[in-house]
Amino acid sequence: MLAEFSVVPIGAGESVSAYVSECIRIVEASGLEYRLNPMGTVIEGDFDEVMAVISTCHKRVTDMCDRVLTTIRIDDRKGVVSAIASKIESVETKMGKKVKK
Amino acid sequence: MLAEFSVVPIGAGESVSAYVSECIRIVEASGLEYRLNPMGTVIEGDFDEVMAVISTCHKRVTDMCDRVLTTIRIDDRKGVVSAIASKIESVETKMGKKVKK
Amino acid sequence: MLAEFSVVPIGAGESVSAYVSECIRIVEASGLEYRLNPMGTVIEGDFDEVMAVISTCHKRVTDMCDRVLTTIRIDDRKGVVSAIASKIESVETKMGKKVKK
Amino acid sequence: MLAEFSVVPIGAGESVSAYVSECIRIVEASGLEYRLNPMGTVIEGDFDEVMAVISTCHKRVTDMCDRVLTTIRIDDRKGVVSAIASKIESVETKMGKKVKK
Repeated sequence: MLAEFSVVPIGAGESVSAYVSECIRIVEASGLEYRLNPMGTVIEGDFDEVMAVISTCHKRVTDMCDRVLTTIRIDDRKGVVSAIASKIESVETKMGKKVKK
Repeated sequence: MLAEFSVVPIGAGESVSAYVSECIRIVEASGLEYRLNPMGTVIEGDFDEVMAVISTCHKRVTDMCDRVLTTIRIDDRKGVVSAIASKIESVETKMGKKVKK
Repeated sequence: MLAEFSVVPIGAGESVSAYVSECIRIVEASGLEYRLNPMGTVIEGDFDEVMAVISTCHKRVTDMCDRVLTTIRIDDRKGVVSAIASKIESVETKMGKKVKK
Repeated sequence: MLAEFSVVPIGAGESVSAYVSECIRIVEASGLEYRLNPMGTVIEGDFDEVMAVISTCHKRVTDMCDRVLTTIRIDDRKGVVSAIASKIESVETKMGKKVKK
């Protein structure tokens, strides 16, 4: 299963990179496969382990500030593994060329 | 804490109301305060209890079809309770009139 | 077509109701059907008119602060009108009872 | 300005890569900077040009099927350019190391 998430503090200043760094440390400690993009972090794993990591990230940022907006989008497809790489490869195969990623 | 979620099957036909109904049954059984809107369901509760309800909904719909897209948006603000009503009331107070809801 | 949107300033304090009020004024002036819920505003109309209203809201809030996070979710289904009411009615018909909304 | 978007057909089968490919063709033709990730496409540009590209993608996919779910998340921060690269670099600077991207 793939999930993309972002955890953004409201009212704690405009810069959010300190909070993203905290979350990436938690994601890396989980051992789950992940990719950081400019709008969020995509992780792959079983539903329960992915949600546990995102919950830890959300709680860590709520410890640091008073209001937090967390967005999660889940793509859960039966029988698919390594989707973090294969979804992009599937698009490249259809297009017959490499894309920017 | 408030969370809005939607669980949508991909490739299982265009109508999604049967899946929404399943989720509303699960939400109602939880006893948590909720509101259904045309694009999702908003529920209020502690982080862990809200995420447990959404997880149950997601798993129920994945049992019914092969690919599921779940979106969750969380607004977690310290010291705020009954936000499901007070957020809209706060807008109405600022506007000095009732809005459509 | 239905769209739900929310426009949130980052780093402009924790309260967002003043910005939501600005957006509701713009939505009401458009004449489009809408519903405010605790996590966003749902509007109904043609794609171009809905996107024009959301763009105006986004630009109004960016005039008021330095960083803005806008989320839009669109459900565009051919041949469906009055979806703002009929989507919830369809769930209530399936469940055989009224739900909280 | 950065925006991440995804355009997903509902009820048109489980595979979505053909629709993603159509969108990437449109994005590449626009000349805007972009990155494809496993959950969406991030593009950078002025608000109006970014929204025009996303609108073209949405309309192209609605031509191909009967129900489309489009999600857009916008991060609009005054005075920031090249955010598509600098947001990730800022996290790497804070962490003192490279991350997976």
